Amino acid sequence: MSQQQENVKIAGCSFSVHPMSDDFKEKIKGALEKIDTSKVWMNTDEVTTTVRGDIEHVFDVTRAVFLRVAETGVHTALNATFSVGCPGDSEGDQYTGHKEKPENGLWDLDQYTGAKFSLYPMGGGNYMDVIYKGIERMKESGIEVSEAHYATKLSGDTNTMFKGLEEVFSDTEKSGSSHTVMTVAMSANSPSQERGNK
Amino acid sequence: MSQQQENVKIAGCSFSVHPMSDDFKEKIKGALEKIDTSKVWMNTDEVTTTVRGDIEHVFDVTRAVFLRVAETGVHTALNATFSVGCPGDSEGDQYTGHKEKPENGLWDLDQYTGAKFSLYPMGGGNYMDVIYKGIERMKESGIEVSEAHYATKLSGDTNTMFKGLEEVFSDTEKSGSSHTVMTVAMSANSPSQERGNK
Ligand SMILES: [Ca+2]
Repeated sequence: MSQQQENVKIAGCSFSVHPMSDDFKEKIKGALEKIDTSKVWMNTDEVTTTVRGDIEHVFDVTRAVFLRVAETGVHTALNATFSVGCPGDSEGDQYTGHKEKPENGLWDLDQYTGAKFSLYPMGGGNYMDVIYKGIERMKESGIEVSEAHYATKLSGDTNTMFKGLEEVFSDTEKSGSSHTVMTVAMSANSPSQERGNK
Repeated sequence: MSQQQENVKIAGCSFSVHPMSDDFKEKIKGALEKIDTSKVWMNTDEVTTTVRGDIEHVFDVTRAVFLRVAETGVHTALNATFSVGCPGDSEGDQYTGHKEKPENGLWDLDQYTGAKFSLYPMGGGNYMDVIYKGIERMKESGIEVSEAHYATKLSGDTNTMFKGLEEVFSDTEKSGSSHTVMTVAMSANSPSQERGNK
C-alpha cells in the first residue's frame, strides 16, 4: 500500500506506569494481561513502554493500562508522551489503518485522577493559539482545569480526561501541526488528593 | 531590578519521583528533608513538584531528589519536564541570579540508571540539528546512547547523565531557542535492568 493510499501518519506513545507498592511487578503484569494490544505495535524496555498505531488505539491502550493498575487501589502514576509526525521517526514498527474500534472498554470504571498535560506543536507557527484552544476544549469536556507552571492541571474522571486529551491531540494534528507532542502526567489514588473516587 | 539588568530567563522543572514501595511517602519525605532547596522556588501538588530558578540550581535539586530516593535501593522512577522561555510563563515565583554554586553534592554517589530524554526547541527553526548535536554531546560525556521511538535512550552513571542533560539544555537555550523544553524519564534499581549498580 502506498503512502498516499494509506494517508495515515503513525502515532505513538512512550509511557511508564508506576504502582507505588512492593508488588509493583505483579500489578503491572496483571494489568497488561487483561489488555487488548492486538491493534498496536508494543515494546517495553527498562524505562518505558512504547505503543504505535492509529491515534485512537494508542490512546485506548494507554488509558486501559493506567485504569487496570489504578483499579487495584494503590497510588498509581502514569507518565506518557504522545507523538505524531516526528521527523526523526522510523518507518518501521507501523501498525495503522485498522478499521476496528478499540476494544479495551472499561468505560464504566469510575476512577478519579489528577493530571497535568502540555501540548507541543513543533515546527513553528502560532502554536500558543493551538494550546489555548485545546485547554478550552478540556474545560468543555467536564474536567476541572487550572493553570500550573509548564502545564495545564486537570482533575476529574479518568475516562473523560482521556477522551478530552485524545481530542486535543487529534485536533492539533488535523490543524496542520506537522509534528505534535503531548505529555501527560497522571496520579490516581494519591494520599494527597482532596477527593477520592466517587 | 529591571528585566534588562537581570538578563536571566527563569528556568524550571515539573517532576515526579516514584519509589515503587509500600512506604513511598516516607521515602519521598526522607529524601526531601536531606535536600538544599534554598536556591529555588519549590511547590508540590498532587501530581508533580515544581522547582524554578537558575538552570544549574533547577538541575541540582532534581538530581538530588532522584539520587536520595534511589539510594534507598527501591525501584525508583523520575519523570521530569525542564523548561525555559515558555511564552505562557508567569512572571511570579522567580528565584534567579544566585551567585552561589548548587549545594547538594552527592557527586560520589554511584547510581546506575536507564533513561530516555527528548529535546523540544519550540518556535520553529532547524530544531532537529539542535537535537542531533545534543545527542552527540551526551555520547561524548561517557553515557551509552541508543535510539528509541520519540526519545533517545541513555544508560550509565546518574551524575554524569545529569551533567550531560544540563549541558544539552543550556546549549539549546544559548543557541537561540526562544522556548526550550526537555523531558526526561529515568529508572533506577529496575528489576529488568541488565546491569546493577557498580
Ligand atoms: Ca511503589
